[in-house]
Amino acid sequence: MRKSIATVSVSGTLPEKLEAIAAAGFDGVEIFENDLLACPLSPEEVRSRAADLGLGIDLYQPFRDFESVPADVLAGNLRRAERKFRVMERLGADLLLVCSNVSPDAIGDDELAAEQLRLLAERAAEHGVRIAYEALAWGRHVNEYLHAWRVVRMADHPNLGTCLDSFHILSRGSDPIGIEAIPGEKIFFLQLADAPLLAMDVLQWSRHYRCFPGQGNFDLTGLTASVLRAGYAGPLSLEVFNDVFRQASAERTALDGMRSLIALEQSLDGVAHPAVPAGFAFAELADDGTLGGLLSALGFARTGAHASKPVELWSQGEARLLLNSRDQESHDGPALVAIGLDSPDPGGAVKHAGSLLSPVLPRERAPEDAPLDAIAAPDGTEIFFCDNAWLADFGEGALVEGGITRIDHVALTQPLHYFDEAALFYRGVLGLRPQESLELPDPYGLLRSKAMSSPDGAVRMVVNIAQVGAGHHPWQHIALACDDVVATARRLRAEHPDLLLPIPDNYYDDLEARYEVDPELRRLGVLYDRDGRGGEFLHLYTVTAGRVFFELVQRIGGYQGYGAGNAPIRLAVQHAGA
Amino acid sequence: MRKSIATVSVSGTLPEKLEAIAAAGFDGVEIFENDLLACPLSPEEVRSRAADLGLGIDLYQPFRDFESVPADVLAGNLRRAERKFRVMERLGADLLLVCSNVSPDAIGDDELAAEQLRLLAERAAEHGVRIAYEALAWGRHVNEYLHAWRVVRMADHPNLGTCLDSFHILSRGSDPIGIEAIPGEKIFFLQLADAPLLAMDVLQWSRHYRCFPGQGNFDLTGLTASVLRAGYAGPLSLEVFNDVFRQASAERTALDGMRSLIALEQSLDGVAHPAVPAGFAFAELADDGTLGGLLSALGFARTGAHASKPVELWSQGEARLLLNSRDQESHDGPALVAIGLDSPDPGGAVKHAGSLLSPVLPRERAPEDAPLDAIAAPDGTEIFFCDNAWLADFGEGALVEGGITRIDHVALTQPLHYFDEAALFYRGVLGLRPQESLELPDPYGLLRSKAMSSPDGAVRMVVNIAQVGAGHHPWQHIALACDDVVATARRLRAEHPDLLLPIPDNYYDDLEARYEVDPELRRLGVLYDRDGRGGEFLHLYTVTAGRVFFELVQRIGGYQGYGAGNAPIRLAVQHAGA
Repeated sequence: MRKSIATVSVSGTLPEKLEAIAAAGFDGVEIFENDLLACPLSPEEVRSRAADLGLGIDLYQPFRDFESVPADVLAGNLRRAERKFRVMERLGADLLLVCSNVSPDAIGDDELAAEQLRLLAERAAEHGVRIAYEALAWGRHVNEYLHAWRVVRMADHPNLGTCLDSFHILSRGSDPIGIEAIPGEKIFFLQLADAPLLAMDVLQWSRHYRCFPGQGNFDLTGLTASVLRAGYAGPLSLEVFNDVFRQASAERTALDGMRSLIALEQSLDGVAHPAVPAGFAFAELADDGTLGGLLSALGFARTGAHASKPVELWSQGEARLLLNSRDQESHDGPALVAIGLDSPDPGGAVKHAGSLLSPVLPRERAPEDAPLDAIAAPDGTEIFFCDNAWLADFGEGALVEGGITRIDHVALTQPLHYFDEAALFYRGVLGLRPQESLELPDPYGLLRSKAMSSPDGAVRMVVNIAQVGAGHHPWQHIALACDDVVATARRLRAEHPDLLLPIPDNYYDDLEARYEVDPELRRLGVLYDRDGRGGEFLHLYTVTAGRVFFELVQRIGGYQGYGAGNAPIRLAVQHAGA
Repeated sequence: MRKSIATVSVSGTLPEKLEAIAAAGFDGVEIFENDLLACPLSPEEVRSRAADLGLGIDLYQPFRDFESVPADVLAGNLRRAERKFRVMERLGADLLLVCSNVSPDAIGDDELAAEQLRLLAERAAEHGVRIAYEALAWGRHVNEYLHAWRVVRMADHPNLGTCLDSFHILSRGSDPIGIEAIPGEKIFFLQLADAPLLAMDVLQWSRHYRCFPGQGNFDLTGLTASVLRAGYAGPLSLEVFNDVFRQASAERTALDGMRSLIALEQSLDGVAHPAVPAGFAFAELADDGTLGGLLSALGFARTGAHASKPVELWSQGEARLLLNSRDQESHDGPALVAIGLDSPDPGGAVKHAGSLLSPVLPRERAPEDAPLDAIAAPDGTEIFFCDNAWLADFGEGALVEGGITRIDHVALTQPLHYFDEAALFYRGVLGLRPQESLELPDPYGLLRSKAMSSPDGAVRMVVNIAQVGAGHHPWQHIALACDDVVATARRLRAEHPDLLLPIPDNYYDDLEARYEVDPELRRLGVLYDRDGRGGEFLHLYTVTAGRVFFELVQRIGGYQGYGAGNAPIRLAVQHAGA
């Protein structure tokens, strides 16, 4: 399908926006009027600039507060419209978005609205322009999409149709299935935006928090399917107002928008993710020589080394960590640099990631190395799709048994600008599903945290953004599943007490006020959480090494969370020791 | 009055918070439980740390979801409370905040609530603890302060009183005058927070957007007056949850909190600002030699020079600008460094600023110079309070007549962390009143803008924060009142066309669609705005010099705004030329 995007969705001046949009592969744009007004190029120059870039101008928007007005206001509004039709002729745009009147002067009379919109459509026709009438969620009288359609049908003019906007429909909780009552040829345009569920004024929600399809909580696939079932054949067009996107790189935002539309098309076509990962194959850490001791203490052993690279394999159970001593000077101490995922079809997974515009990374490898396909996550972490062949490169030795069985989850901290992008990446590219979203107090700010997991829970990722004061950097961590955290803690406490993050006694005073827990937890520094369904979570943290630490976790009785209530305790202790 | 603050209001670990709070001169603190739980110090150590710093522990908080519960839940809740009483004994805290139950399990039965709270108060009494019961704005059943009082009165126990929180009262639109129905000795505690008016879920509003008294839109003076009239004799205590404060310096936040309480006390005492400025005396710019030409073109003349410093006086009408060529290397080209205000009592104004903890700046001056008292605004701009004596230092010559008559307003851009502080500064220290608050789209982000003015409009300041992408710095500007912007523009267009910021033709196509305006505006590059009451605004912008530009403005028919709708046009053109 044809793919468009409103110029307001990306940052920059109008020429910069057009270039970024074209570079991302869009077919067309909606020209947002303010972008044109602030641009020194004439409409003719914008038209030819767009044409040179291969972009059609699919819509000019918005035209406000037109219909349902007293006669004297109507005259001024028609004069205003005539001027806009002339601008559109110069731009080569033939579709104008008219959004429902929000003025207190508007009269609540559908017949009057229809009559005036018919008049507007007649005038538009003289200029070869068509009108797409949209119900704003906060329209004075018309604020439901079926109401807008009723007015359009009443007006009954070939140059008048309706514009559907997923945000305006879904933010009000309207059921999009009613779209199928609208003849496809009367749906003149479709604007798509997702959004997180927020309990706030819908106007503020719309103007600051929209995001691309798949980045929020709305069902864009269901809505778009209804629009297509109605017979709509126009473009899928993104229209997003987002405070973060406004500050971000236009190129990156446009590319992410394109990725969201490709993912939407795939979900419409019923394309399932070809290779949802079955588990973590490994996590790779840049090491300056300090991690081996920590891993030994945790019961890991060095079970292999790469034939041609300075990379060691450390294992325990199915938990495998690679310590890479190359490029250590580019990191500030130990850092998480790559994640390997067990993939039933590594080639298919990389091809799928490529179809979603993820950068596929070139690999330097020796001829005898196993092929390893990798892509880059939004924060630059490398993601490898692996079958078991990679282990041969390390000549893995005997299986090491201990309390730790596998990697439970990996927590990555993203720059603020990549949070929405990361949500779409982990959902679309890796096939993970969004789990809980949380805000966690940090002594110097807030962490916003989103957990995502594969359907069977074998791969769990936690994506954090840190809104913290300057100079306070967040940590990444690897959580290791452990059969018996208490037993492991007993051993660590006895043999390596300095490796355990000290947990304040005050925490246990509160824990014991809330639950009857084993007093040994306090002696060992093991943290505890309980969910509402009887599930329990025991976990402990190691001290940090560079920007990395390890967590040992034990899930009991189907506990699905991450002990988020304990994270602020951990953050405060880490900061105090940093 | 005794002044306290909740530890959650400032950033850092608990010891850091206590130090910053003590340094700002508070008498006491509310210990926010999570701050204690995450702290490695024992309650006894926290107690002695606070005592060493001269801080009393006035409240321990919060204790949640206690009352109106089924019998089996009550047993667990009492057990939980007993543990907290023991912690409080160790802390040396004797007042516990109990906030109204938000659990879906809570039963809507005031008699049950009162009975269980009486039981809690009896147990508390055994530990020397008193209970302050507060209605959360989102409490399940009890969410109005008078409802909480009704339950407290029904329970009738000397160790049970109510806690009033201005946010919970004013966010619901409750009238605080009803507080006067509560006997003062039953008001156990008063928590103060202001907030901007936001149309959003009250829980989110409370947790992220609270600010200090005088920084938001609530009438804290009226509420506090009612509390005092009721006979309350306890502390004024700040409790603020704010995403920006969380990331800011604890010292700076605590000091700003103290400033807000001093300003509140002054307004309670009916202390008027002793010296609201009568106008702008001057604006001072760091100059690298480029500003003289620009000012000459605008009709200014060099009318004086400082006797002992490299500072020139440039004048036109009553508009006076100082060009300072010292320290130019510390700025990236021309920059606004100081503002002089005409003050009926400069000494009183500085003393008042000092009472509000504003830093009074030391002045290097020659013995023959006029005394000039200066303070630092939050962004570091120096503010001088002047009588006319300062002009003598410059030996001002003949009055220069031209279209420009005086400084209309000055627009400063603040760092994000100082926005709330700046609002309180301009309101409390300078006696300005908040005018409009706006969001302005910038090509690379958003500007949040707050205008403030003296009651007669003679001094107007616009405070902006720029939420823009990295590398995009905002500008400061000086707006000059002009008798006839069109005539001045004609002259500039003829003589110095390169000094005018070019305004796109597309802007005028839109302007002419909306209003019947003189086509000469387009030829001259003059911008236009109209308010809803017949007021009109003509203005133009110069090109930028360094981080500074000038605006010429003409207010017609009582127009009070700033042409905000035209600012995005200006920003886009400035960025395109930057």
